[in-house]
Formats: sequence, C-alpha cells, structure tokens
Amino acid sequence: MNEMDAPHLAIVGATGAVGREAVTLLESRGTALQSLRLLASPRSAGSTIRFRGEPVTVEPLSRASFDGVDVAIFSAGGSISREFAPQAVRAGVTVIDNSSAFRMDPEVPLIVPEINGERLAEWPGAGIIANPNCSTIIALMAVTPLYRAAGIDRMVISTYQSASGAGAAAMAELEQQAREFVEGRPLTTKIIDRPYLFNVFSHNSPIGEDGYNEEERKLLRETHRIWVDDSVRITATCVRVPVLRSHCESINLTLRRPLPEARVREVLEGAPGVTVVDDRANNRFPEPRDASGRDEVLVGRIRADLSQPEGFGYDLFVAGDQLRKGAALNAVQILERLARSPMARSPKPAAS
Amino acid sequence: MNEMDAPHLAIVGATGAVGREAVTLLESRGTALQSLRLLASPRSAGSTIRFRGEPVTVEPLSRASFDGVDVAIFSAGGSISREFAPQAVRAGVTVIDNSSAFRMDPEVPLIVPEINGERLAEWPGAGIIANPNCSTIIALMAVTPLYRAAGIDRMVISTYQSASGAGAAAMAELEQQAREFVEGRPLTTKIIDRPYLFNVFSHNSPIGEDGYNEEERKLLRETHRIWVDDSVRITATCVRVPVLRSHCESINLTLRRPLPEARVREVLEGAPGVTVVDDRANNRFPEPRDASGRDEVLVGRIRADLSQPEGFGYDLFVAGDQLRKGAALNAVQILERLARSPMARSPKPAAS
Repeated sequence: MNEMDAPHLAIVGATGAVGREAVTLLESRGTALQSLRLLASPRSAGSTIRFRGEPVTVEPLSRASFDGVDVAIFSAGGSISREFAPQAVRAGVTVIDNSSAFRMDPEVPLIVPEINGERLAEWPGAGIIANPNCSTIIALMAVTPLYRAAGIDRMVISTYQSASGAGAAAMAELEQQAREFVEGRPLTTKIIDRPYLFNVFSHNSPIGEDGYNEEERKLLRETHRIWVDDSVRITATCVRVPVLRSHCESINLTLRRPLPEARVREVLEGAPGVTVVDDRANNRFPEPRDASGRDEVLVGRIRADLSQPEGFGYDLFVAGDQLRKGAALNAVQILERLARSPMARSPKPAAS
Repeated sequence: MNEMDAPHLAIVGATGAVGREAVTLLESRGTALQSLRLLASPRSAGSTIRFRGEPVTVEPLSRASFDGVDVAIFSAGGSISREFAPQAVRAGVTVIDNSSAFRMDPEVPLIVPEINGERLAEWPGAGIIANPNCSTIIALMAVTPLYRAAGIDRMVISTYQSASGAGAAAMAELEQQAREFVEGRPLTTKIIDRPYLFNVFSHNSPIGEDGYNEEERKLLRETHRIWVDDSVRITATCVRVPVLRSHCESINLTLRRPLPEARVREVLEGAPGVTVVDDRANNRFPEPRDASGRDEVLVGRIRADLSQPEGFGYDLFVAGDQLRKGAALNAVQILERLARSPMARSPKPAAS
C-alpha cells in the first residue's frame, strides 16, 4: 500500500466496543491512513481517544461528518447505519458497515476477506460493503475451507456467545454483576434483562414465527449469501454465556463428499486466519480466554462424527474474538484490501 | 409407602455436593427412612449434618459401615464405588451408585425412574443399581417421550455444563475466581487447571483415540443402554461453562417418523418430570439459574429444524439441575421406588 492509496477514514460509533477495537487495530497494524475522524452520538462526543500518539477528539455524527472522507467504518447499530450510510455514500464515501442493515441487500457485497475478498478487486468506490455477523464470520472462517474441499450438505451449530456482542455496556454489566455477587448485593440487570453472571440464556434477539431468533437467522442467510449457495442446509441455536469477549461455536458438519480425518485436519491447518488448537493429551482446545485479543479463529475438537458414515461427518469447536475477527478486524481487513484495489478510490466531489 | 417398607439408608460421600443435596432432598420430600447413616472419607468424618431437626455425625467409610443398612446411595466417585459397593452388596445392601463404575455392567440396571423405572418392580434386593451420568439424564428426560412417539434416528448434542458436575470444590473455586477477579488478583486454578470465570472449555474428562471425551462417550453409550436401542445415531460435544449448578444442552433431533410441531410440544408438555419453558414473545427459555433447585428438567426453544424435511427435524434447549435430577434426585427417586417394590427388601443377615 503506498501513501497515495491511503484513505481518509471515519469511524462511526468510535466510542463503542467495536469502534474502540478498530482504533486499536489500525494503530497496531500500522494501517496506512491519510487521516482518522472519530464520530459518535452527541452524548459521547467531546471525549478524546489517543491514536498514534495524538489525541483525537470524538465529533458528533452529522450529515456534514463525511466531507473529505474516503471510507467510513460504521459500528453504531442498524438504525444509525440506515440513516447515515446512504448519506455518506452520496458524499462519495465507501461505507464498511458492521450492522445488519444492508447485509441482505443484493447490491451490497457481504465480505470476509479470507473467504470472498476477491469480490472487492473491482470495487467501483462509493457504496456500502457489509461486514457479516460475528457468529457467521467465526463459523465460516473454519468451515469454508472444508466447504471448498468437500462441499457441505448440512451444518448444526450451537453457539456460546460472549457479552461483547451486546456491546461495551453489556460487558461492563457482566463485570459489575461479578462485583455485586462478591459483595452479596442484588445483580444489576439494566442492559441484559436477567442475571448474566453464572447463567446461560437464549440469544437476546427477536424471535420469528418459526421459532428462530434473529442471530440464528443471520447465520443461515449470511452463510448462503457468502458462499452463493442456498443448497447448504443449516440449523443453529444461539446462546449467550457469561464470557466477556470471544464467541465459541460447536459445529457439526455433514460433508457432500467424504474426507479422511487427516485431510480435514490438513485443510484446517492450511486455512488462512485459522489456528488449529487440538491437543487431546492435554485437553487443550479453543477457549474464549485464549481467543481474546487474537486475530485468528481457533479451531479444535476436530473429530469424525461417530453418528455418520465414515468420512462424511465431522465435529469442530471454534473460538474467535467477537470484537476482532467477528467485527473490527474484518472491517479493517476490508479497508486494507480496498486500499490495494486500483479502482477503490473514485473521483469525489469534495475530496480534501 | 408404609413404615415397614422404610429402609435403613446410608449415604456414601455425604459431605460432597451430591451427598449434601441427597440429604436435603430426603428431608424436603419426607422420604420414609428407618435410619440415615452418613459416610465420608476419614478427612470429612466427624462433622455433623442436620437431618429432620437432629445432628447426624458423619462417620468414616469402612467395611463395617454397611451393617444394618438396607440401601446405600454412593456418590463419592468411581474408585470408592469400585472398592466399597461390592462389599456393601455382599452385606445384603442395595447400592444406588452415582458413579460411572458399573453403568455399563450388563447385570446392573441403569435407571431413570420416569423412563425405565419399571425395571425395578422385581428388584431382588442386594445388588447395584446405577444412576446414569447427569448429561444423559437431563437430555433423556426431554428426548425419551419423543423417542417413544416417533423414534429417533440421530441426535446432535452440545452441552453447557456447570461447575457442580466437577464437585463442590469446583463450585467453590469458580466463586473464588469471581472474588479474585473483582479484587484484581490472579485466579486460583487448583481444581480446574485453567481460568473458569468468564471462560468456556472442553469437558475435563479423558479423551479417547477417536477424539471423544469420556463425558461424550457416556452420553452415547448410556442412551443406547437406557433405551435398549443401539440403532440411534448420536454425537455430542461436551463443554463446561462458568455456571454453578445446572447443565444446559442444545439438542438437535432427527426423528424416524414425522411429527407436527404442535404434537412435539404436546408430547413434551405431557412428559413426566419435564416443564416446558418456551415463551418466544418474552424470550424466556430454559436457563440454569431457573433450573437450579428445581426437580424438573426445563425444555424450550422447541422448533422445527429448517434444515430437515418437514416434521423430521427438531431443535430443543434443555436445562436441568445437575445436582438434583442429574444426580441426587434421581438416586432418591430410585430409593423411593424400591421401597414401593414388594420384593425390594430381601432377608438380610444383619438387619437391625
């Protein structure tokens, strides 16, 4: 990436859990930028966030926020994206949207760079690129290489999702509940409407008539969209566990064509962005504490499913940092990929 | 049950998590007993546990402990059961064993009273009856009624298991880790060899060459034994979550014969020992906090699996108190059932 390609970047929702992680990643990765603008609600504006040694003042998000911006990462929820992303696009900005608002829009590419990043090679500039849902990204990082190697007939997924998916306030509430438990006080349940500490509960997203919640529906629909393959049969049960920031998923696969277990392991060991953690002797497998703060999705418990004909069934257990690969890292990777694309930067009416 | 049938009972492992729960249950249920003897390791002996208003002194377990005892509930681990249960049987005692030591012995009935309690009707007295593993009991309480109604071709289970399955010390360590987290101190990892608070990890039982751990293998083998049906295909992924005392399980079922969803719900609502908690509008489903201290296994997230032909696939999410139905309650129910059996009490050499 040369300096000519480095974009003027804005982050919408800069004070949220994903926004803050994005700032950290841009700094640690040394992502080339001409400038960084941090945007948030008027309530959060005015604070400063350090970036590359300088304090950056968080500005209130407005229609004028996108003047001179090339790319904006949105992570402030669906309603902010629905209102401001089209305005940003009209101002010539490429929006990388972390919300679910545009993920199923046929005009909007749904991108995991390691999986379908080649779709960005001819990005025309100005428009929306969607980041998939965290659970989808984390599952597909491990499963896509196997999908390519043998096809997937069916997936049964049960998730173990952390507080970070519900935002920084949910993480803080879980920590607060630990303090309250230790002090013998009643648990505060403002953000999550039930005790979360030492508890497990069905994912807090709306449930449709078919009984699936929105998180489960995302896993189904987004997988079909990313693979451009509606024929894969998927069911999912999405569950929150009292963990701060990484998601785990128990994934049962039925392949279309048989693969020996050694080959499954080989495929996963060669998968980009994936680290195999599968030490049976020492009972070391993917854990959210180990995945947190890491870029890679961890995969383990790799074994032939005894309930399936030989070579067709596999069980996996994955862990990935919801804030990194599940959200901010994926967005930053898209940003970096765009900067490498010759067509990424179109002429702008108001480029600074 | 009349007083003539009431047994002289011993509890082996009386100071452990399951033993203490058994004492609590015998008191709250008013289970008819002639006497109660509490047995534990020499280390734990000498303490007293209140039962029906009287302090009962915990005695050290020895060969002589079973004189005058009719029934003994063993919950002190496999090695104690292997050493002392045969001795107790030779002394004319009926052993209800909560360990895995004898579960696969073809001479030993493996009993969940609601499922196959009729096998006790002709119990000859003196011998071992095995309590299944907690995860097996909790899953089968919900699934057996559907197995009876439509047959089960295949089950894919992912568990969310609590600290109580690893014993009282593991529960105490998880609580201690909460204190240490709040105080900013390093987490103690004596009982579980890794941080448990805010973490998830693969079940800490030995792993075989096929990659399944012992807990998963129990679910497979014990289900086949309880149903007397090896044809059911099962895979399981057993995982510990930072919860104190109830297990959850995400269960994906493939039925042999199609059932409409309304009928699945009806079957579960009529199942003994099962309570349906399935409020989609308010996102209320089985949670370990709600299951703890309850006798029933909670079942919810009941929905047709979108990845299967209509009527053949269902997803369920269950929660059950590992110490109650998963262990102590099941043993006490077996005890109560034995006392109702006319043949349960054989002549004893040393009955007091």
